Amino acid sequence: MEKPNKNMTRRDFLNQVGRLGGAVAVFGAMDTLGLFGTPTYAMKSDFNLPKKGDLPNGKNGKTIIILGAGIAGLCAAYEMSKVGYNCKILEARDRVGGRNWTVRPGTTETEIGGVSQTAQFARGEYFNAGPARIPQHHITMDYCRELGVPLEIFTNTNEHAYYYRENVGALANTKIRKQMIKADIRGQVSELLAKAVNQSALDSELSAEDKERILTYLRGEGGLNANYQYTGSSARGYDIFPAAGLEPGKVGDPYTLNQLLASGMPNSISGEYSFNQQPNMFQPVGGMDAIPKAFEEQLPGKITFGAEVKEIRQSPDGVKILYTGKGKGNGAGSGNLREITGDYCICTIPLPVLTKIPADFSSEMQRAIGSISYATTGKIGLQYKRRFWEEDERVYGGMTTTNLDINQIWYPSSGYGTQKGTVVGYYNFGNDAVALGDMSIAQRQAHALAQGVKIHGANYKKELEAGFSLAWHKIEYSEGGWANYSASQRQNEYVTLNKPDGRIHLAGEHLSYMTGWMSGAIESALIAVGTIHEEVMKSPSVAS
Amino acid sequence: MEKPNKNMTRRDFLNQVGRLGGAVAVFGAMDTLGLFGTPTYAMKSDFNLPKKGDLPNGKNGKTIIILGAGIAGLCAAYEMSKVGYNCKILEARDRVGGRNWTVRPGTTETEIGGVSQTAQFARGEYFNAGPARIPQHHITMDYCRELGVPLEIFTNTNEHAYYYRENVGALANTKIRKQMIKADIRGQVSELLAKAVNQSALDSELSAEDKERILTYLRGEGGLNANYQYTGSSARGYDIFPAAGLEPGKVGDPYTLNQLLASGMPNSISGEYSFNQQPNMFQPVGGMDAIPKAFEEQLPGKITFGAEVKEIRQSPDGVKILYTGKGKGNGAGSGNLREITGDYCICTIPLPVLTKIPADFSSEMQRAIGSISYATTGKIGLQYKRRFWEEDERVYGGMTTTNLDINQIWYPSSGYGTQKGTVVGYYNFGNDAVALGDMSIAQRQAHALAQGVKIHGANYKKELEAGFSLAWHKIEYSEGGWANYSASQRQNEYVTLNKPDGRIHLAGEHLSYMTGWMSGAIESALIAVGTIHEEVMKSPSVAS
Repeated sequence: MEKPNKNMTRRDFLNQVGRLGGAVAVFGAMDTLGLFGTPTYAMKSDFNLPKKGDLPNGKNGKTIIILGAGIAGLCAAYEMSKVGYNCKILEARDRVGGRNWTVRPGTTETEIGGVSQTAQFARGEYFNAGPARIPQHHITMDYCRELGVPLEIFTNTNEHAYYYRENVGALANTKIRKQMIKADIRGQVSELLAKAVNQSALDSELSAEDKERILTYLRGEGGLNANYQYTGSSARGYDIFPAAGLEPGKVGDPYTLNQLLASGMPNSISGEYSFNQQPNMFQPVGGMDAIPKAFEEQLPGKITFGAEVKEIRQSPDGVKILYTGKGKGNGAGSGNLREITGDYCICTIPLPVLTKIPADFSSEMQRAIGSISYATTGKIGLQYKRRFWEEDERVYGGMTTTNLDINQIWYPSSGYGTQKGTVVGYYNFGNDAVALGDMSIAQRQAHALAQGVKIHGANYKKELEAGFSLAWHKIEYSEGGWANYSASQRQNEYVTLNKPDGRIHLAGEHLSYMTGWMSGAIESALIAVGTIHEEVMKSPSVAS
Repeated sequence: MEKPNKNMTRRDFLNQVGRLGGAVAVFGAMDTLGLFGTPTYAMKSDFNLPKKGDLPNGKNGKTIIILGAGIAGLCAAYEMSKVGYNCKILEARDRVGGRNWTVRPGTTETEIGGVSQTAQFARGEYFNAGPARIPQHHITMDYCRELGVPLEIFTNTNEHAYYYRENVGALANTKIRKQMIKADIRGQVSELLAKAVNQSALDSELSAEDKERILTYLRGEGGLNANYQYTGSSARGYDIFPAAGLEPGKVGDPYTLNQLLASGMPNSISGEYSFNQQPNMFQPVGGMDAIPKAFEEQLPGKITFGAEVKEIRQSPDGVKILYTGKGKGNGAGSGNLREITGDYCICTIPLPVLTKIPADFSSEMQRAIGSISYATTGKIGLQYKRRFWEEDERVYGGMTTTNLDINQIWYPSSGYGTQKGTVVGYYNFGNDAVALGDMSIAQRQAHALAQGVKIHGANYKKELEAGFSLAWHKIEYSEGGWANYSASQRQNEYVTLNKPDGRIHLAGEHLSYMTGWMSGAIESALIAVGTIHEEVMKSPSVAS
């Protein structure tokens, strides 16, 4: 694999992002594409990041005030501190990570509205309340490597997990292993297409040679017999399993095309191949918060916790932030209004929170900030005393896909074969998330259990030990899962949000086309870092 | 999930395996199937295993001589020792596991023919020369749970790994990410079928309602546009990736149906869904030999290493085994012929080895043993100083599928994001395995590297640190990968091999319909255990 051609990527950069007038991510490695047909994805090395020595002896290092110690803020501070910038992070919470939040034994949260709970999980049990999976092509992988965060597979797909759809078609109210639905729809659809091909219905589309070839493909892909009929295939699993001794096994009868189509289940399959969901995906060993914690270790003394931003001010010469402390953390007083000043500000505060903070933004920027709605989304972690899904049902990892308001059930991607395990009992969006979020903590859990019992039977309720639920739109300092842009907002408000506003640069997942992903936050932070650094380098005070 | 109905499984047992006249695996849990449409697979609890207390005070415990400390022999000894049988294992090698063999720093092997090598791997690097993956539905998972063997995901599928086919069609000699081929063939085939449906070519097959439904399915599955055309989809990956800032990304142009069919690549897809290959698959953390080692820990003093079986004798009253020691292990003399006697023998020696040992088998059994050929198969482990496949190419785990004689390249399923990594540079079969096996160690490695360079470029050679190759058909005491039965042999010789021959019971993967899998060895061992125990229980000396 050759390294990307730097001239090409620079040209792409100039063509694509000249509008921003800043130092922005450079993508493509188009020569690689040309050579292999396989782009190598965005990499850290594709960004125009400051290098050690850019700031002579560090003496011209400016002070950068970073609002928020989520992934974007931490990453910006990490890269800028490396080369000598004086970075100061204000963080409202008592922890790093922001929406990257791993709920562990003793985790306490009071939601907006006053609903409060403490996780009663057993030692070692946890669930990732925010981001929970990393596609292998995301730049997040580069930071895990650089920071030494150990990774393991996140099992986004598991053929042995189930589809379950309530009150839809002939297969309603029955959990069916994904392998069965996939094998059967592929088989039935392959049989159908083979029929059309063999009846010469597609002769205008296919050469004689391609007719033969597509029939060969369909026979393999669909598991068709020599007459191009689908009568079931081992890919769907067996009714009687091939065994030792004299048992060769027996494949079950397939579902009919009509049953499959009426069930709607096959329509869920393609989601598992989508660009950001296909294998392999990863998670840090022991919890997603290993990533912010690894950044934090690199930033000793630079983070002020419990610092709630009250005003964001700027002049042509610098920025000034007013904040209150909570009597915790590094230098924040208890409730007194404090002031911090710097040369630039990188503001990663989510827009629904930022819009309520008095700030010296242009009116265009202020309007843009106030116009973007955030996703409603919720999750529940359910700790079980026994992994019945593994032991009794042979479902090791992955997720069950339903049309219930719980949407999905996630089985843990670690600790396979051990005793306890923590399932994500719902991960839902939109109105479902609002409805469950409006319930009491006890009601949410009771509801999640009642839905899960439909799939897993009584064990789902009986073997529960502890639960912890949250509604992201009700979590203080976040107020939503991620930015939701309309197509029109992408053309207008989004462009405004991406422009530096004087000395203030916004960063976060909301400044990306990868909203809701840590990679969006990271890449956006790297753009802010690069843009500020470019400006600093151009300023006369640095010339020596 | 209800427990299997014991009456039903007993009926199945009687119906299916009465021919054997022994205590045999009971499968199906048919009530579960009836209830959910989802069989729960073979489980340890489905076998009629001896229970503690079956042998009163252990005083009637018979002596069981077990030949071979591979998975079958270890499992049989483990289950029988639990209830008071006196188990003695003779093992020709200096280690447990048999074909379950993890090559580590310092591993030395001299193949039949005299080729010799020692693994120069770095500390912590290894590869599994034999079995390397466990499907989640195999009974092997139950033993990992019971023995406390930690498991992690084996990445059998990875959409970012490649297809590579030499000299075939328009896409020849180009590595192409699997995601691209899969998305494009699904897209093109979906477009084709949608065309047939829309042209009413399949009206006799589909109701009006199902026509609408199948079009909806094809649009999603194929990533078709509103006109049912495939113009590429994000599932295939991007030419320019969606990024932070103002880059929404750009999907590349798809390959044509003709290109895809001519390449032959789509014909490789269905293998990834096959029953024993689909996600999720597992491996023990740190090497597959964790499984035999965990059994070994449960069998202190019961294994004689370096004991090469020379004769297998039996009478109506018992069995007698003659063997030579190698001056190592527990009680074996150095080269002197030794004798051990017992009540029963469980013989797990692979048939190509067993056929050469003088034994008191019936002539029918002796003929059957000599008639079964074993798979030729080979592997090479290649240790690299840097994981360029991860770092440069964003391939984290999984395997590249080729039409070269190396067949496959496996990327490591652990240590993601770390420095060094050990790739399996070939895993091949049949004539390819014979040809590479006939080379010198140096030639094998040079050949594997030359082939891999075609896919990964110069790094594949440049960054290599150490290699270790093997040809299973040339490994002493194994002489092949697994039993290969013809359909006719399954009807004849296989039935003979499954019958106890006097006091000798064969066990191993070759006594199963899961040849080559550890689950076949385990289930076969459990059948031998159950059959012997049933006979012992019926014998007058046990009645008290």
